[in-house]
Amino acid sequence: MSLIVHKYGGTSMGSVERIQNVARRVAKWHAAGHQVVVVPSAMSGETNRLLGLAKEINSQPDGRELDMLAATGEQASSALLAMALLSQGVPARSYTGWQVPVKTDSSFTKARIKSIDDVRIRTDLDQGRVVIVTGFQGIDEEGNITTLGRGGSDTSAVAVATAIKADECLIYTDVDGVYTTDPRVVPEARRMTVVSFEEMLEMASLGSKILQIRSVEFAGKYRVPLRVLSSLTDPLLPLEEEMTSGTLITFEEDKKMEAAVVSGIAFSRDEAKITLRAVPDTPGVAYSILGPVAAANIDVDMILQNVSVEGTTDFSFTVNRNDFARTLDLLKTQVAPAVCAREIVSDEKVCKVSIVGIGMRSHVGVASLMFRTLSEEGINIQMISTSEIKTSVVINDKYMELAVRALHKAFGLDQDQSQRPQP
Amino acid sequence: MSLIVHKYGGTSMGSVERIQNVARRVAKWHAAGHQVVVVPSAMSGETNRLLGLAKEINSQPDGRELDMLAATGEQASSALLAMALLSQGVPARSYTGWQVPVKTDSSFTKARIKSIDDVRIRTDLDQGRVVIVTGFQGIDEEGNITTLGRGGSDTSAVAVATAIKADECLIYTDVDGVYTTDPRVVPEARRMTVVSFEEMLEMASLGSKILQIRSVEFAGKYRVPLRVLSSLTDPLLPLEEEMTSGTLITFEEDKKMEAAVVSGIAFSRDEAKITLRAVPDTPGVAYSILGPVAAANIDVDMILQNVSVEGTTDFSFTVNRNDFARTLDLLKTQVAPAVCAREIVSDEKVCKVSIVGIGMRSHVGVASLMFRTLSEEGINIQMISTSEIKTSVVINDKYMELAVRALHKAFGLDQDQSQRPQP
Repeated sequence: MSLIVHKYGGTSMGSVERIQNVARRVAKWHAAGHQVVVVPSAMSGETNRLLGLAKEINSQPDGRELDMLAATGEQASSALLAMALLSQGVPARSYTGWQVPVKTDSSFTKARIKSIDDVRIRTDLDQGRVVIVTGFQGIDEEGNITTLGRGGSDTSAVAVATAIKADECLIYTDVDGVYTTDPRVVPEARRMTVVSFEEMLEMASLGSKILQIRSVEFAGKYRVPLRVLSSLTDPLLPLEEEMTSGTLITFEEDKKMEAAVVSGIAFSRDEAKITLRAVPDTPGVAYSILGPVAAANIDVDMILQNVSVEGTTDFSFTVNRNDFARTLDLLKTQVAPAVCAREIVSDEKVCKVSIVGIGMRSHVGVASLMFRTLSEEGINIQMISTSEIKTSVVINDKYMELAVRALHKAFGLDQDQSQRPQP
Repeated sequence: MSLIVHKYGGTSMGSVERIQNVARRVAKWHAAGHQVVVVPSAMSGETNRLLGLAKEINSQPDGRELDMLAATGEQASSALLAMALLSQGVPARSYTGWQVPVKTDSSFTKARIKSIDDVRIRTDLDQGRVVIVTGFQGIDEEGNITTLGRGGSDTSAVAVATAIKADECLIYTDVDGVYTTDPRVVPEARRMTVVSFEEMLEMASLGSKILQIRSVEFAGKYRVPLRVLSSLTDPLLPLEEEMTSGTLITFEEDKKMEAAVVSGIAFSRDEAKITLRAVPDTPGVAYSILGPVAAANIDVDMILQNVSVEGTTDFSFTVNRNDFARTLDLLKTQVAPAVCAREIVSDEKVCKVSIVGIGMRSHVGVASLMFRTLSEEGINIQMISTSEIKTSVVINDKYMELAVRALHKAFGLDQDQSQRPQP
């Protein structure tokens, strides 16, 4: 008997019929003797519907009230799933974030989980019930409802799995695993059966939409084995088959059978680039620029500071395109005058493309193959950022698909591992 | 400065535009220096949408999960109203039932309020905020979400008004007051400017849909002055005018200017009649019949037991038509065998029509005018029930409109008070 967490995305919960399919799948695990906790997202479209209403009222609605509103989506889908399980004869009970409780900080719309009480969940599991915990939400110290931000249900699932020490956390979604890149852009993309935690972390942070990055961080920190698998298969698929399907995200490198040099190509179009030109290069200037940005709860991604020329430096960074206007406003009114920048240059028509692979650690020449490939396609690189297992470039966003396809081919990701070229 | 509770129904909250109108109206009261607590219903259609999803999954969904689901409607509308107020520059904050908390018993889908903590509400009011409390819902001792049943937001509003000792509880709705009867059935129906609490109680319990009966009971118990008024007037109507519009439900009889013999005609089509024939007339037989019905949480309305003939009696009662199948099943399988009833006769094509009036107390002949009027229209009376201030009859439901119109005319309700006939 295992203790398993299932997470179902909005598409999997998208209609009454699909919810009943989820219930059948959960019932199969329950019947096989497993203890199951389910973390569902809101029915697809519901969160957008709610946020749409909010935006009609105010283009920048109050965070506390927005969370109060958005949290209803998961509460409704969780209750419906409990009903579906009960009507299939499976004892089940749903809980909201505050009922568990899932305690978070007070950063409305992007709260972080601080702790999860496992008493209620364990009591119900021990009584043979399937426990449903609403994804995406929690409660802060003052008793306000908080949400974890888009894709937060993944994080909820992993956090619950950690709290109850689950054997595995299964992320059911509308794709059948993690691919070398998005198959909609590169039809030759291949599913990975195993991927390392570090690679998944880079893939997630770089715009691969399968898992929210924080869920992968969480899983890494607490070493929760994650599996991404399809919710669109027959819910009554033999359990043995389902248990080994999809992509396993592992923490043991020797388990990684396909230790390719480059495992995948990630990309993100939601990028915007901002440069402060000719900033006097004094100690602490980076903090003077990014401190106020962080204080405004804006996530900064790439940061690039050129070497100093005549006592001044150019300071560039990227933010999510949704935060672009707000960031620019902040820089113009507060930051640029304070640090005496000569001007602000910005571009919201950029994208980021990255190659990711644990194998890069021990192989030279990977980055240069990337740059050569882009150069041969006539694509200008605007920014470069590297880490141990990834190299990212910022380019004009009109070249995004072209770059991804070219890199996917150059690194042989459309071929069997054994036939891939070694740079 | 007064302390006022506003309650808005689903129609008043039915769209973003209407929610903004509600916000404008509330802002007007706030700007005039009043402390305002608002209790909104779910956006019209939302509760039906949610219950529809539940019914698709299971025709008799689990009560706990149903409440978990249904409570989301008011949570969403409350958050939207808070956003609308904030965007109009009015400080506001919304609270769910469990956040206040509104404590109830554990009768899912028809819970009763046990207590309301006023600390959070008062703290916010004292800080100049408008406080929004989700209607319809609460939390039981085990921390489960409960709902108060259809129309429960009225009860929430009155309960909140009681808890904070509000000066008046304003029930904004899509009609402009309480009428002598439903104007859709009798176009000559007239609005009452004042109605006594007792009359309103009878009107509500008899199917007048304006207020949930429990809210009137609550208001009566704690003597909260209630006013029913229109939410469809210009939200920026002069406050003085709005404060005296609609119908005031009063507890002081001398305030009632139009002390008519009969104040109004109430009716309800959602009735079903069940008779147990030839039940041996032993002591305790009524309890043997109705005990199991009450235990199944079925509300019984009229109860009628004829005098005993040859040691047996016929025992009749009415239930809401929605509970009819369930009640009949219960009687057939459990009750009838236990009390040795000869047979069960039932009819779900009946309705109830009632005349209501405080003046009936001191006037004879009111009931006989009612019976004569129905007889002249050729309508057969199946059951009769009376109280101090009302007389109800059960008739075939095809005669409902005819009966209401005839009685409305016979008691002169379409005329000024001074010109009404005295029976």
